[in-house]
Amino acid sequence: MYGLILAGGSGSRLWPLSRELHPKQLLNIQNSESPLQYAFLRLKECVPPENIISMTGIKHVSGVKYQLSAITDKTVVLSEPISKNTAPAIIIGTKYIADTTKTDPVIIVTPSDQSVKDTASFIDTVKDGEKIAEEGYIVTFGVKPSYPETGYGYINTSDKKIFDGFKVSKFIEKPDSQTAVKYFNDGNYYWNSGIFMFKASVLLDEVKKHAPEIYQLLENFDFTKTSEIPFTEFDKMPSISIDYAIMEKSENIALVELKSDWNDLGSWKSIYDVSKKDENGNVKIGNVLDEGSKNSFVYSSSKLVATIGLEDIVLVETEDAILACKSDRSQDVKKIYDKLKQQNNSAHKIHKTVYRPWGYYTVTGEGKGFLTKMIHVNPGQKLSVQSHNFRSEHWVVLEGKAKVILEGKELILSPGHSVDIPVKAIHSLQNPYKEDLKIVEVQKGNTLIEEDIIRYEDMYGRV
Amino acid sequence: MYGLILAGGSGSRLWPLSRELHPKQLLNIQNSESPLQYAFLRLKECVPPENIISMTGIKHVSGVKYQLSAITDKTVVLSEPISKNTAPAIIIGTKYIADTTKTDPVIIVTPSDQSVKDTASFIDTVKDGEKIAEEGYIVTFGVKPSYPETGYGYINTSDKKIFDGFKVSKFIEKPDSQTAVKYFNDGNYYWNSGIFMFKASVLLDEVKKHAPEIYQLLENFDFTKTSEIPFTEFDKMPSISIDYAIMEKSENIALVELKSDWNDLGSWKSIYDVSKKDENGNVKIGNVLDEGSKNSFVYSSSKLVATIGLEDIVLVETEDAILACKSDRSQDVKKIYDKLKQQNNSAHKIHKTVYRPWGYYTVTGEGKGFLTKMIHVNPGQKLSVQSHNFRSEHWVVLEGKAKVILEGKELILSPGHSVDIPVKAIHSLQNPYKEDLKIVEVQKGNTLIEEDIIRYEDMYGRV
Repeated sequence: MYGLILAGGSGSRLWPLSRELHPKQLLNIQNSESPLQYAFLRLKECVPPENIISMTGIKHVSGVKYQLSAITDKTVVLSEPISKNTAPAIIIGTKYIADTTKTDPVIIVTPSDQSVKDTASFIDTVKDGEKIAEEGYIVTFGVKPSYPETGYGYINTSDKKIFDGFKVSKFIEKPDSQTAVKYFNDGNYYWNSGIFMFKASVLLDEVKKHAPEIYQLLENFDFTKTSEIPFTEFDKMPSISIDYAIMEKSENIALVELKSDWNDLGSWKSIYDVSKKDENGNVKIGNVLDEGSKNSFVYSSSKLVATIGLEDIVLVETEDAILACKSDRSQDVKKIYDKLKQQNNSAHKIHKTVYRPWGYYTVTGEGKGFLTKMIHVNPGQKLSVQSHNFRSEHWVVLEGKAKVILEGKELILSPGHSVDIPVKAIHSLQNPYKEDLKIVEVQKGNTLIEEDIIRYEDMYGRV
Repeated sequence: MYGLILAGGSGSRLWPLSRELHPKQLLNIQNSESPLQYAFLRLKECVPPENIISMTGIKHVSGVKYQLSAITDKTVVLSEPISKNTAPAIIIGTKYIADTTKTDPVIIVTPSDQSVKDTASFIDTVKDGEKIAEEGYIVTFGVKPSYPETGYGYINTSDKKIFDGFKVSKFIEKPDSQTAVKYFNDGNYYWNSGIFMFKASVLLDEVKKHAPEIYQLLENFDFTKTSEIPFTEFDKMPSISIDYAIMEKSENIALVELKSDWNDLGSWKSIYDVSKKDENGNVKIGNVLDEGSKNSFVYSSSKLVATIGLEDIVLVETEDAILACKSDRSQDVKKIYDKLKQQNNSAHKIHKTVYRPWGYYTVTGEGKGFLTKMIHVNPGQKLSVQSHNFRSEHWVVLEGKAKVILEGKELILSPGHSVDIPVKAIHSLQNPYKEDLKIVEVQKGNTLIEEDIIRYEDMYGRV
């Protein structure tokens, strides 16, 4: 069997912990594995690790690789140059597997941002699904609704049994609340988990039939020769979900009921639900001091968070933003996220950590004519060769060692060493060593914007 | 008339905004005047500004002077080398005025950490009080209770009228709730505001009678010769409140009812009560984004605070700590404060701003063998001449100009300039200019503690 992990998507609903550049699947909320890592570890129970392929957006490739490398030395990560929803990702992944193996294996596709705790029951369901997939069906995993949720798609099953599953009669988009209650009471409706299984040839045949525009783009593409689809080809793909492109149209779908627990981690309330609570129903993560709160979720990323007498509150502290939310309103986090997007500048002016392919930086101070950053460069990474028209920079090494190229000269700096980068000087910051590199950067100038950057060389294709 | 502002005391109840080194009276919650500044501006309506004396602890002298200099060029600030409660402060202030003026004026004493909005009515009360004080009474300002508060002292009046006031029959310490209800219903009980008026000679006579141990310590002390009481003399003073030392014992007390509003700013709930609210009953200060909250107080010192659906919550964000509290539990902030004091180290390890006589610093980063600070030096101030046994330092100027003395050599650094301070090198950072000075400090070493400092010279007497 092969596995395909969908690790794209941005996380507006777990803001302020998730950001466009640090989405839900990469979050490490409880200081254990991230949802992506859990997804990999779950699949590994039924798919050899070298057969597990992850698909993600170009911005997240380095983050996904970094996290997977912590739990496996066998990992293939394919990147999408732009986000085109689930259909192109799943179809490309399937073609990649078919081309490179020259066989026709069963593939299990799973999102990377869900929580399943009972792995044994999950694997049981996979085994049920495998039999049905072998028979030529596209198998979808259905979750028995526990309440009439309006935020999920539903799947209606027919009476026809196929091994331990049912033939699907209909895929349905998110219902209104009245319809959701009807589905919930009916008994033949399931939540759509987004987990699918199929033989490669079965899916590709359905694509040829129902999504020929995608099929044609890929038909002559050979993944034995390259693992990257050129941007221009990829850009021609329609942006469409697998449900809409294939599942709603195919006659050939079966459902197996997921035997394990399942949570889509779609809101802070969901995170609270899957977290271990203390005797007062509180979840306290990080530096939290409480006096008499109940049923609350309190997350501190660094600062002391003191809580007194809270009830049903979600409180999340990050370096640049704090969220305090009544638990049952946690779906409205998206409204805050959208407001911030509209405001754009004001939300960007404040302190923050920005994730880059080479690591991350945090703005630690801003003022008249200056800006200070803490820069963290992962081992083996380098920032682009660059220059700035409007600012000088001053670097002080804090931890690790820095290789600095300044106007063609190479400098090796240890902790405490510093260097001035004048305006317009061509320079690069590199960490070719095995330890993390941390430096302080002091920018000086009248125009201090990220856009003041001319890139000459970049190992992440950003020139 | 003379005025005496009591500007001592630390602010545990408005934590995390108030700290031991940045107490309530200096807080600038609404980006307008601080309680201290308001106290001065109120007194100025009835006392010439040059006749207003402020008393504060040695740690707060520079903060008090700095704030008063923003609203007046005539200010006298006396300092207490250690805190000895209100009696020594009031008595020393009174003796200072008597000695230096060689007259016997009426003095009004007021705390610096209260809110009074209706200044005109306050002044009216002062005029009523002045007449009674001239008659030889110690006048206390009583606040008509609006509910049976257990957190204040009460004053019981007799039937005897004195001009627009009443002879006091008894001072009473904080009552239990049953007694408080009795006082509230009685009508002859008032809250003790801590505002007093008296002729200097009247108070000093009462001190001679009821607190002879304080009188004797001061008797031969002449404030025309020095404005500073030596530490050894001051240390002999008992630590005692004016209520306990004089008011409860004197036969000679009258009460005038305070005609204005009055709030002791004793909790976040009090701050909420005196703040201007929006149409949903919310007070939002700083960078706050809200979706549907009600009757909540949200304060952001720098980071974005997003709130959704909160009700009756106090949320206060500072650089190193966040408080989230059900409004009616805001008295319990003191419990958190006390817990932190017990823990000591862990509460001190995190990022924070520390106020110093010369300005303040914020720890912006900490890690293996390094610590980074943002240092802010007020105009005309200098840090002590010092050296460190276990760390080197690297300074980068961000704003303003720095005068640096390094091993006897003077350097003038402008924004972008940097300097290395080696281990054990004797150095000093100074800002003799009119603009604020901001620098980044990078400390390097294996033992990075504040205590690693040898001071050779210090303009604030810390050698």
